Amino acid sequence: MSFDAVLAEKKIELPQAMAPRVKIRPFVRAGNVIHLSGQVCQWNGEIRYVGKLGQEFGIDEGYQAGRLCSLNLVAQLRRALGGSLDSVVQCIRIGGYVNSMPTFSDQAKVINGCSEVMTEIFGEAGEHARTAIGVAVLPFNAAVEADAIFEVR
Amino acid sequence: MSFDAVLAEKKIELPQAMAPRVKIRPFVRAGNVIHLSGQVCQWNGEIRYVGKLGQEFGIDEGYQAGRLCSLNLVAQLRRALGGSLDSVVQCIRIGGYVNSMPTFSDQAKVINGCSEVMTEIFGEAGEHARTAIGVAVLPFNAAVEADAIFEVR
Amino acid sequence: MSFDAVLAEKKIELPQAMAPRVKIRPFVRAGNVIHLSGQVCQWNGEIRYVGKLGQEFGIDEGYQAGRLCSLNLVAQLRRALGGSLDSVVQCIRIGGYVNSMPTFSDQAKVINGCSEVMTEIFGEAGEHARTAIGVAVLPFNAAVEADAIFEVR
Repeated sequence: MSFDAVLAEKKIELPQAMAPRVKIRPFVRAGNVIHLSGQVCQWNGEIRYVGKLGQEFGIDEGYQAGRLCSLNLVAQLRRALGGSLDSVVQCIRIGGYVNSMPTFSDQAKVINGCSEVMTEIFGEAGEHARTAIGVAVLPFNAAVEADAIFEVR
Repeated sequence: MSFDAVLAEKKIELPQAMAPRVKIRPFVRAGNVIHLSGQVCQWNGEIRYVGKLGQEFGIDEGYQAGRLCSLNLVAQLRRALGGSLDSVVQCIRIGGYVNSMPTFSDQAKVINGCSEVMTEIFGEAGEHARTAIGVAVLPFNAAVEADAIFEVR
Repeated sequence: MSFDAVLAEKKIELPQAMAPRVKIRPFVRAGNVIHLSGQVCQWNGEIRYVGKLGQEFGIDEGYQAGRLCSLNLVAQLRRALGGSLDSVVQCIRIGGYVNSMPTFSDQAKVINGCSEVMTEIFGEAGEHARTAIGVAVLPFNAAVEADAIFEVR
């Protein structure tokens, strides 16, 4: 089944691929590798989780925030590929950044939200290398941000 | 116009490409891709902005600190390319790290300083994917650090 | 001398290449480039340094924690390459993440522990571009985490 068909089959809705708020690119392709800019946990431009893990939010909300980041990454990727995801070969890497109180150390469980969206859509091609860290703060005080690198045909 | 000529035309002065303070490399090339080491906001070895955004510094100073990081990245890139920037194809990605109080969430405006240096010098070839995060602290308590990936011929 | 022989000659023992605690991959290869997932300062699954630099730990312990991260990176790399390190061409980049109190700014000295393991094993092929940052917290409250990119044959 094509990745586009998986989106429909699993009823996974993607947000709009938003233009960056500053003059940067949401994606750059070099050869068969696409680098995607960091995406925060927003839906069509509205940040859904504003605050820190370990203070405003717990693991469950963080996980949902993580899922949102990946949906935005996939929306940008689809735009980068001209509207279809079917030339995706592999998700190479995800960088996951969790807006964390210094005492919150469950970044892995939060970034699992990012990771599981990728495997839901791409199957084995969605399995990636990953680095998850807890940062002092994120742009717009978003709870989670993630970036990604994909190999494409 | 060549990128080297743009530097002269816009009177953009680059700092010295400093040797790293430890035994690492300021750049590594693999195929047509160059990874540049993180550069802090220094000029010829003197860190110009020491402290945190939201405490010692506001957005305007952070923006200037961000510009300094990119000037050092370009200085290293020029050295990596044997003294001329003209084989640059594209700035693929910038990672921007802002030494932030947990309440400061304008990382994007700070890292715009990094980004705008790239587009001033390279035009469209300077437009990049980007991730900006707020970190607890940086080496030497520098206000801003940035790294970059470039595609070259 | 082969890199595998260097391990024996220098009596550098690698830990087990642990399976990730979540469904991600410890490494992904795309072309001749391998991205390694972030590795914390653990030995065979037991995190050896739990806490923050500038609070629980000083530079010397941080350096040792950094070494552990790199040993785990090399263990994963060896597994990625089918049991031998001898197809390594170059360590391209290390990202070093130090669990830091906001006042601790010696991240470079801590991440030197990561870097020196690479040059001990791979010589010039272990010299890399690097970014070191101080983060608010890390998964499992580990003191240090590092990821890496390698070029291989």
